[in-house]
Parts: sequence; structure tokens; C-alpha cells
Amino acid sequence: MDRFFVDTSAIRGESIELGGAQARQVASVLRLHPGDEITLLAGGREHIVTLASVSASRVTGTVREARAASGEPRVAIALGLPLLRGDHSEEIVEAVTQLGVSRIAPFVSARSVARVLPEPKRRRWERIAREAAETARRGRVPEIEPLRRWDELLVALRRPLLVAWERETVMRVRYAVPANVASLAIVVGPEGGLTEDEIVQARKRGAVTVSLGARNLRSETAAVAFVSLIADALG
Amino acid sequence: MDRFFVDTSAIRGESIELGGAQARQVASVLRLHPGDEITLLAGGREHIVTLASVSASRVTGTVREARAASGEPRVAIALGLPLLRGDHSEEIVEAVTQLGVSRIAPFVSARSVARVLPEPKRRRWERIAREAAETARRGRVPEIEPLRRWDELLVALRRPLLVAWERETVMRVRYAVPANVASLAIVVGPEGGLTEDEIVQARKRGAVTVSLGARNLRSETAAVAFVSLIADALG
Repeated sequence: MDRFFVDTSAIRGESIELGGAQARQVASVLRLHPGDEITLLAGGREHIVTLASVSASRVTGTVREARAASGEPRVAIALGLPLLRGDHSEEIVEAVTQLGVSRIAPFVSARSVARVLPEPKRRRWERIAREAAETARRGRVPEIEPLRRWDELLVALRRPLLVAWERETVMRVRYAVPANVASLAIVVGPEGGLTEDEIVQARKRGAVTVSLGARNLRSETAAVAFVSLIADALG
Repeated sequence: MDRFFVDTSAIRGESIELGGAQARQVASVLRLHPGDEITLLAGGREHIVTLASVSASRVTGTVREARAASGEPRVAIALGLPLLRGDHSEEIVEAVTQLGVSRIAPFVSARSVARVLPEPKRRRWERIAREAAETARRGRVPEIEPLRRWDELLVALRRPLLVAWERETVMRVRYAVPANVASLAIVVGPEGGLTEDEIVQARKRGAVTVSLGARNLRSETAAVAFVSLIADALG
């Protein structure tokens, strides 16, 4: 069944109404008809809808069933995402959205090579996040926050804050995750890693450094590995 | 310090000798000189070498120190890798090599879209695995095995054999990893997943299905998540 995100305003009790691009998608792209079913995602819930009327400008229907989206994790995970060269940050946006991250906070730090996030690129990230959330059966699209410097990132992210660092040899992810947290922030470094100064600064602000294992990982692999381990540790 | 893999025959006790492409790399690409140090990787060990003579056809040196490569995991992990469209299998080869996989066993199954592994593509995989192993400080390059069908793969992989399946809802990776194993094989499905028949066939042959969480993952994300969780469970 087709699934996509709509504004919460599209759902009014038991009835739904779509206009604009979403009505066009239902009528002209998906070519659905009255009686067909779709799943509309809004506000962390999925709504199974039977269509009543379909035109390219307006679609109406009835909510047959509504429930919390099955793919939405209980704990909100925010990821501090280093801006990387080429399409590497986008690969991460897609993968960590599938894995359940709820906020993506891009940053530049001392060793970042890429240092700006042009508006078209940000919009591409948002589109990738939305599509990945739909196919992963998430109930929410992760929010992509403004680009920040390292010091700003440390202020913006909630605690507990875990930072993956290749020179941390002792602290494993599963021991760094406190029991019964409602939210959690994690960070991986850019291509050349985080500097010692940046780690000191983070620790002063209460961050805990963790190891992702004995091997040197690229930022993309580190991000996916880190989120997988966190999701697993949270159960 | 530059690191690369050489044949074990290049290292003879305390002396080393490189010819051919590797001598050219040291002399012409890395532009090293007598007295410079390099790390040569062979047979799971890293050898810190002081160069004695350097020319484009022959490089000699002395082993100053030899030790087990720091990035080599204790447990051998084999990955059954679905052949995927485009460059997606290559992304996986790179990431799982960084994460410590020791054998990569490509396969096609009922829902595979790509069904052949042309020789140039296999050689590209081998090059990617070698480079990823060097930067990850591995002591071995994972072996890329011949392409197999699902039934052949089930015969070829050692046990315990864990298969990620999106309809497995109970078994978590950490509970599926036996204590004190010396080797382990894991498999993720292709783009459209594994079929019920394929899962039945695998279970008949002793495979255990595991869940990677409540969300639908693409094969690339699933492979990286699975290897991360396995490496973590193995300590």
C-alpha cells in the first residue's frame, strides 16, 4: 500500500482531504480511485484511508484505522552530522533515517573539508529524509536543522551526548547509554576526525566519548554503525 | 605512515624485498627514500620497515617491529552479500571491510535484480576491499568469493549462520551470537528481500533468522547495521 507524509491538518477526525501536489500525486502519479486504500503518515501516526473521491485538485477519504507508526522508535535520537564532501552526507541522511533518527544536526568543525550547505543541497537532504522515512515505515520525517559550528552544536544538542572518537578505546556504546532516557544525541566526526581540542571542549560540556571498535571507520560507516548500536542498546 | 598489503613472500625474516608494481609505488608514487619508514601488511601482521634501498624496480629494507595488526578482529565474520543494482554492493564491500569482515560471499536469490558479476566489477570490489582494509588498519584483505545461487551459498557458508529477515520480529542479534565462536556467517537479502521459501530452505539447513529492528532497511544499511551489531556482540 502506498504510504506518504501529509500535514496533520489534512486529517480531521475520521475524514481526510488532500489538495495541491498531494492530490495530484494520488490522482495522476499513483492513479488511485475511490475505494482504493492508502496510508497517510502524520504526527507519528499512520492512518489507513479508504478514498471517497479522487481528482487532481482534491482527494477525500475516510480513516479506517489509525495507530502509532510501527517504525517509530520510543527514544528520540538526534545525530550531529558532519558536512562531508560529495554526496556522503546524503548517504548518511538516508541510512540513519531508515534506522530511526529523529533530528539531524549538520555541523562543520576544524577538519571539515566541505564548509557550506547550499539551500538546494539542504532541500535534497529533506527530500531524501522524507522518502527514506516513508519506505522505512517511520511515522515522522527527521528534521534537518541549520548548519552549525562545533561550539554551537555542543550547545544545541540535548544531553546525554555521546561522541564517537577513534582514540577512545575503553567506553563501548552499550555502556554509555543510560537506562530510561527519552532522548539522546550522538555525533561522529568529519573526514579527518575531531581534534583533541574539540574533544576537550565537548567533554567540558558533559559529552561522553565512545569507541565504535578497533578499526578506523569512514564517517559514513561510523554514522550507520553508531546509530545501529544505539538503537540496539535502547532495545 | 604509509601502509599497504604485500605478499607474505616479500618478508623474509628481518629483511624485506619488493619488486614490480609495489617497488614502483614506493619509489615513484610515495617518493620514499632510504631511511623512511613504511608499514607492510601480510598474513594478518603489520611490519614496520625502515627502507635500505629504493629504486623503481627493487626496494629493500629491515623489519624494525612486527606485531598482529591492531584492526584485525578475533572472530572471522563471513558476509553473504546480495548482488545489488548499480554501485550499492561496492558501498557495502567498503563499509564491511572497515568493520572487520573476513570473507565476502556474493549471491543472487529469487528477487535479485542484478544477476551477474562481471570480471571488471569483481576486480573493482577487490581493489575497494584492499584499500578499505589498508585505511582501516586491518591485517588481512577480505576474500571475495565466487558468485553463488542461494542454495549454493547455504552450503558454502560455515555455521553458525544468521540471516537478517524483516519478518523476524523476536530474535535480536545479540542473543543469536553464540559464546566463544571462532567464525560466524551472516546474510542480508537483496532489494526485494528474501522469499519465504528461501527462509524455509535456510532454516532447514540450520540458519537462524534475526531482526535488525522494527524499520524497513535498504540492503546497504542492513549490511552495515548487521556487521556492526555482530562485531559489538563479539566484543
